[in-house]
Amino acid sequence: MIVRDLNKAKESRRRVDTPNWNSVRLLLRDDGMGFSFHITTIYAGADLPMHYKNHLESVYCVSGEGSIEDLATGEVHAIRPGVIYALDKNDRHVLRAKTALVMACVFNPPLNGLEVHDETGAYPLEAEAV
Amino acid sequence: MIVRDLNKAKESRRRVDTPNWNSVRLLLRDDGMGFSFHITTIYAGADLPMHYKNHLESVYCVSGEGSIEDLATGEVHAIRPGVIYALDKNDRHVLRAKTALVMACVFNPPLNGLEVHDETGAYPLEAEAV
Repeated sequence: MIVRDLNKAKESRRRVDTPNWNSVRLLLRDDGMGFSFHITTIYAGADLPMHYKNHLESVYCVSGEGSIEDLATGEVHAIRPGVIYALDKNDRHVLRAKTALVMACVFNPPLNGLEVHDETGAYPLEAEAV
Repeated sequence: MIVRDLNKAKESRRRVDTPNWNSVRLLLRDDGMGFSFHITTIYAGADLPMHYKNHLESVYCVSGEGSIEDLATGEVHAIRPGVIYALDKNDRHVLRAKTALVMACVFNPPLNGLEVHDETGAYPLEAEAV
């Protein structure tokens, strides 16, 4: 059994920082679960085009308000606590944070650890472990 | 892209009710993500021995207080917001809720939909879809 605490993990290499968000990666490939699990905070005002070509991702909103635009259809969905979106088709999308958004994210295949977005808005399949 | 809302899903067949907990299954096998994602509420006072022989599960505490006991070692870990546990060895465990616990749960392989625990504390591998 693995037990971890966000409050400790965010002071460790499990926390990845960028100007627009931070992500605390609580479960990673090495844990052998077949998925990774992250608590990601998107800062208020962020406007993030993304395209996870290599991963399926689900994102559950724990707190905050914003929106997600599906770039294939132009549809915009409100994000608020209790809303989940799943990029089941590696969907190109833009996530916009009206307030800070705290999101519980699951990736399949799992991230290794230190991935950040490449120039296409994707995470590479290989990256350094924490 | 799939978008769902806990507040609508909990009024649907995605919500499974038992005397000690309810679970709203926001993503299931049919969604093709390779995992399922549930928001599960454990009622205050519940004392739940479980053994997911057929699934790996991670559980992230969104709110509430309780504990988890690892029956292989006897260790007891506090559950509070920000704590995650992962049953990476199909660990036999007891989850105890001091207050109501709201948990974000991920299963691999994904649940079909209407699973409830069998007499051994496991979910079967096959069950009716929602």
